Amino acid sequence: VSNPGGDALHCLDDIERAAFAVLPPEVRDFFAGGSGGESTVAANRAAFDSVYVIPRVLRDVSAGTTTSALLGRPVSMPIATAPIAFQKLLHEDGELAVARAAKVAGIPYTVSTMSSVRLEEISAIGGSTWFQLYWMREPKRSLELVRRAEAAGCTAILLTVDLPWMGRRLRDVRNQFALPEHVVPANLDHGNGTAAHNTGSGGSAVATHAGQAISAALTWSDVDTLRSASRLPLVLKGILAPEDAERAVDHGVDAIVVSNHGGRQLDGAVPSIAVLEAICQAVGGRCEILLDSGVRSGVDVLKALALGASGVLLGRPLMWGLAVDGEDGVRRVLDLLAADLRDALGLAGCASVAEARELRTFTSTF
Amino acid sequence: VSNPGGDALHCLDDIERAAFAVLPPEVRDFFAGGSGGESTVAANRAAFDSVYVIPRVLRDVSAGTTTSALLGRPVSMPIATAPIAFQKLLHEDGELAVARAAKVAGIPYTVSTMSSVRLEEISAIGGSTWFQLYWMREPKRSLELVRRAEAAGCTAILLTVDLPWMGRRLRDVRNQFALPEHVVPANLDHGNGTAAHNTGSGGSAVATHAGQAISAALTWSDVDTLRSASRLPLVLKGILAPEDAERAVDHGVDAIVVSNHGGRQLDGAVPSIAVLEAICQAVGGRCEILLDSGVRSGVDVLKALALGASGVLLGRPLMWGLAVDGEDGVRRVLDLLAADLRDALGLAGCASVAEARELRTFTSTF
Amino acid sequence: VSNPGGDALHCLDDIERAAFAVLPPEVRDFFAGGSGGESTVAANRAAFDSVYVIPRVLRDVSAGTTTSALLGRPVSMPIATAPIAFQKLLHEDGELAVARAAKVAGIPYTVSTMSSVRLEEISAIGGSTWFQLYWMREPKRSLELVRRAEAAGCTAILLTVDLPWMGRRLRDVRNQFALPEHVVPANLDHGNGTAAHNTGSGGSAVATHAGQAISAALTWSDVDTLRSASRLPLVLKGILAPEDAERAVDHGVDAIVVSNHGGRQLDGAVPSIAVLEAICQAVGGRCEILLDSGVRSGVDVLKALALGASGVLLGRPLMWGLAVDGEDGVRRVLDLLAADLRDALGLAGCASVAEARELRTFTSTF
Amino acid sequence: VSNPGGDALHCLDDIERAAFAVLPPEVRDFFAGGSGGESTVAANRAAFDSVYVIPRVLRDVSAGTTTSALLGRPVSMPIATAPIAFQKLLHEDGELAVARAAKVAGIPYTVSTMSSVRLEEISAIGGSTWFQLYWMREPKRSLELVRRAEAAGCTAILLTVDLPWMGRRLRDVRNQFALPEHVVPANLDHGNGTAAHNTGSGGSAVATHAGQAISAALTWSDVDTLRSASRLPLVLKGILAPEDAERAVDHGVDAIVVSNHGGRQLDGAVPSIAVLEAICQAVGGRCEILLDSGVRSGVDVLKALALGASGVLLGRPLMWGLAVDGEDGVRRVLDLLAADLRDALGLAGCASVAEARELRTFTSTF
Repeated sequence: VSNPGGDALHCLDDIERAAFAVLPPEVRDFFAGGSGGESTVAANRAAFDSVYVIPRVLRDVSAGTTTSALLGRPVSMPIATAPIAFQKLLHEDGELAVARAAKVAGIPYTVSTMSSVRLEEISAIGGSTWFQLYWMREPKRSLELVRRAEAAGCTAILLTVDLPWMGRRLRDVRNQFALPEHVVPANLDHGNGTAAHNTGSGGSAVATHAGQAISAALTWSDVDTLRSASRLPLVLKGILAPEDAERAVDHGVDAIVVSNHGGRQLDGAVPSIAVLEAICQAVGGRCEILLDSGVRSGVDVLKALALGASGVLLGRPLMWGLAVDGEDGVRRVLDLLAADLRDALGLAGCASVAEARELRTFTSTF
Repeated sequence: VSNPGGDALHCLDDIERAAFAVLPPEVRDFFAGGSGGESTVAANRAAFDSVYVIPRVLRDVSAGTTTSALLGRPVSMPIATAPIAFQKLLHEDGELAVARAAKVAGIPYTVSTMSSVRLEEISAIGGSTWFQLYWMREPKRSLELVRRAEAAGCTAILLTVDLPWMGRRLRDVRNQFALPEHVVPANLDHGNGTAAHNTGSGGSAVATHAGQAISAALTWSDVDTLRSASRLPLVLKGILAPEDAERAVDHGVDAIVVSNHGGRQLDGAVPSIAVLEAICQAVGGRCEILLDSGVRSGVDVLKALALGASGVLLGRPLMWGLAVDGEDGVRRVLDLLAADLRDALGLAGCASVAEARELRTFTSTF
Repeated sequence: VSNPGGDALHCLDDIERAAFAVLPPEVRDFFAGGSGGESTVAANRAAFDSVYVIPRVLRDVSAGTTTSALLGRPVSMPIATAPIAFQKLLHEDGELAVARAAKVAGIPYTVSTMSSVRLEEISAIGGSTWFQLYWMREPKRSLELVRRAEAAGCTAILLTVDLPWMGRRLRDVRNQFALPEHVVPANLDHGNGTAAHNTGSGGSAVATHAGQAISAALTWSDVDTLRSASRLPLVLKGILAPEDAERAVDHGVDAIVVSNHGGRQLDGAVPSIAVLEAICQAVGGRCEILLDSGVRSGVDVLKALALGASGVLLGRPLMWGLAVDGEDGVRRVLDLLAADLRDALGLAGCASVAEARELRTFTSTF
Repeated sequence: VSNPGGDALHCLDDIERAAFAVLPPEVRDFFAGGSGGESTVAANRAAFDSVYVIPRVLRDVSAGTTTSALLGRPVSMPIATAPIAFQKLLHEDGELAVARAAKVAGIPYTVSTMSSVRLEEISAIGGSTWFQLYWMREPKRSLELVRRAEAAGCTAILLTVDLPWMGRRLRDVRNQFALPEHVVPANLDHGNGTAAHNTGSGGSAVATHAGQAISAALTWSDVDTLRSASRLPLVLKGILAPEDAERAVDHGVDAIVVSNHGGRQLDGAVPSIAVLEAICQAVGGRCEILLDSGVRSGVDVLKALALGASGVLLGRPLMWGLAVDGEDGVRRVLDLLAADLRDALGLAGCASVAEARELRTFTSTF
């Protein structure tokens, strides 16, 4: 099904289907796939589906709004784009298309360390730009990236803490997936390949490259280093244990992202939505809490808010919009999501994001 | 399968199947569909199916009866028809056919604000008639409707509190559903279209019209206004949070309907049967509690009674009866349901609705 | 698949399949079906499947035995046949074939009030015979049946307490099922049809006949009458509520059968295995507790024992054996079940039924 | 699909599929099958799938290792091969191929009493060799086997305690499975067939033979005898009840294997992973705890460690590797598993097996 005018794209699932119809299978798999048996990919959805919202009524929602703040800055809705590598695989405009759409939508765009467009070029678009940082085997390269992000006007650093190396993504292995020549990690030097990381399980070419660049030795001490090295808000992305969330608070981070990396790192990791409430209770408001992994609709955002998150990162759906129609496709995704969230808030009796965070939920066993 | 004589219609599911076989898909979808991904539509059934009744034995049920009272008036069984808009879409007799069948069955018929026959014409049939009220953008129009309902002899006002605007029903959007010319909201002035509501997500024509008429600013203060404006029993329809149920008691309502609007408003809202017991405990008998959303058999009614409801509203099954054979089809539905409820009560060892409300239940995880 | 030599019948499921292959659909349905939507039929199996046994080890099971006692008399295994009406529908030998096989197997045979062979003829076979009693609209007819059972040497009376009238079995209704001429309720006078019972929902001819004969007014007072009228052990069959089990103790019964009538009475009734443990705790050993509804293997028997039952009644599987090969078919069922139970006991580390009743269980949610 | 070069074998499931494509169905069934309805076989996987790991972050895993110790001796990873009979059925090299691959991988190989190669020939390979002991009807034969195992340099005795006789494996019965002439229980005298055991349910030829040899009278007193008869570490394999685990401690065993024999003994037995945590709590570190039954990936090993096990036994996956390509196939299995476990440990933030045992888990109901 081609969607020249996009008229049949009424929900995010429609857009996913449309993208699957046009993408080369190995590219679809690179973005859609998870690690191992993809049990966590599936559980992310099952866990969201088992949560139900208990709506409130008789509150004036005629002037309801989805506006909120993330990391101290206003957003049109409590959503940022998730950092995703190599977006040029999906469309020639790659990250630029997504960042432009995010700017139009009024939400932050998160540049991946592994973006296929240089971070400076992306931040020049002028929206709110966050920078996702992989801790490199050579820490000075990480700090250089931070310097560049600061210089380019990025407003936050998200340090990914759940990727000592890439999880083994069987689809990529089976597809013998490798980057085409025109897609490169634009932020990185290409000349300094170091020893391959120690997974030894026959990963894809992308995994091998990541293993050469990224450190498996990242610790809380590096968080302190980073904390001292930049005055930007610091976010730790990839926390699932309440103990780690509390420790993050102790180390002075501004926010955490409760995430299992979309089911792409530890297959068998708990769904983030399933631990969100416990983490929020452990943190007790001492830092901001975002969530990703499984968000596919405005109601999913509402569920995350009700369970205590300040907002969510949205990943794969944006990629499907990008694949279908570049910036316009991403805008379609964000427009649908905005409408869906506005709808969900109002139908749950909430005139604001703050009210949504007071909702209670019900977890089914049916 | 056509059912000229209706002989093969042995249960409500048979009638649903028969209706689906004869209805135009877009009309079937308008009544059968829910909002969003229809997760709440599905959960309504799954939640009922996970509840089991623990029957009692050795009680004389030979003179058992399904008679009861709703809102202080006798009924042949603890069921009223749910308010449903535009019933002429299903059969030329529309609301009149359903109301006549309800009268014959000895249960109240609830006129929707959005009925396709004027409320006066319906109440003239002479059964017990309730009036469902949407709170309009212009409150005086709501009060006018209440005046008309009173004048027409309606015996209760059900204020819908879960529809600041219509939930986004994807089936209608995909079907580009609009009302045919001969079906109109007969109770309303058609000339005063106001600004479209703020969902902005590309709803159906029906949703757009509803958005123009209905207020998203309804609050407890309006409940007080309504309470003062009429001496009819006042029912709030669409409550799912125990806190709201308690507040309803504080505002002096006569009853509430625990409902998620049949899965047509907030997709992701909790099934009403799943919160019924908690709400009954919170209310502690201080007002009457009805339930809808998912009732499909006499045993479902029994489950609702066992969990504390005084009765239920029945929706879609009546529409399928109407589609199959007009008033006769609705009578068939109500006859089957009456027999099914009589059967269920007796087999559960209950000679009365009051005894059914003392039953205990078991919720499965298998 | 015909099974002339029966060699491919390695488990009870094989025999069920073989029976389904040879039986007329309406006869298969009469025995296999349940009431309403058959949710309780399905739940009976799902509930058994969710129970797991925690076996013990390092206990000498070389001399293990399945022998036990039911109602104070020795049995080769803790199983009796469930009372089932009209067994001649399945094989010309009907009840006689099943009773002979039960005698050979060393377990009690339960004659139904609605047997298609006279109880005197069945008890003349000489095994242990129990008599199942429906309480008739004319109590003296019940007491006559008890007299006849006593005179014929029956050793127990099982009063069915969960059938004020027959549940509505849709398969029979759809099949317009009626007894063929050669199958009659052999224990009853046929001349005194009384007014049809009050379900009014269009049941089958069998249901109508049952409704004419059986009382819907049975109470605890009748239990007392029956208790005084016979010195035979008295068993109440069809209890699911702990309160009723306790009351049964107070009324001096010898045993109860925790049962939902195989899912044939209240559709939506709780699975008997799901309430067994609570009932055993409530009874605290003050009477014997049997179970039926869903037993299909030796491990199912083991699960019932582990949850506190003294034994089980086996129903449908015997009927499939009867259909496949008369007495030999039933013997095959009982041989397989005996071997299966012997196996299960030993593999669970139990040398006796008493040890099995000390096992603990685990109920899964996966 | 033939796999001459093995290149398409990227995970253990690939290897299972490849084995199923080449094996005669009755051999596949002999190894893949379980007892009865195979409910425990299925539950073993369902139970693992319902457990999720809560990973930790920001711990240096660059020098992470899977090395550990089992029964006081170092292993490359916390895995031993499970004892499995008659491995020559799968490949002409049989046990020798598996033991060689285990040696290369640095993990113990467990010789079955029923191995198709003599234990002396296997232990001569020179890896770490454990000996699995069935307690024979003539105890002196068991003690002879222990003597031989000691003499051959085996480093542990695993006494199987959950096999008074073989569970009834329907697939073997249906297949009329018997050993081909070239496959024999190489460790046993063949001349002294004794009376068949008492299952009497028509088992396979293998079951009959096992019944002739193995004792159903094994008790704790025999454990004491064995304990006194050998200074080798003693392991009881097949414990599922916390009470039995505690008793094992009291009898001075070095380790237990929490196991339901891969679903091949009591059908309906609880999954071992579901009781592991309770057993570890009951034992409180007083002996080592291993687990088998359902392990299919490195993440499964991680889950067992997180729930308190010291390690696992791996069974069927090794057999599929053996079937596909002899020693090389088994090495492929162990290489994949080692990489998978290394990956899982690191992605869960664990630099060691000890850290993995501190992880917490989440059990889903979705």
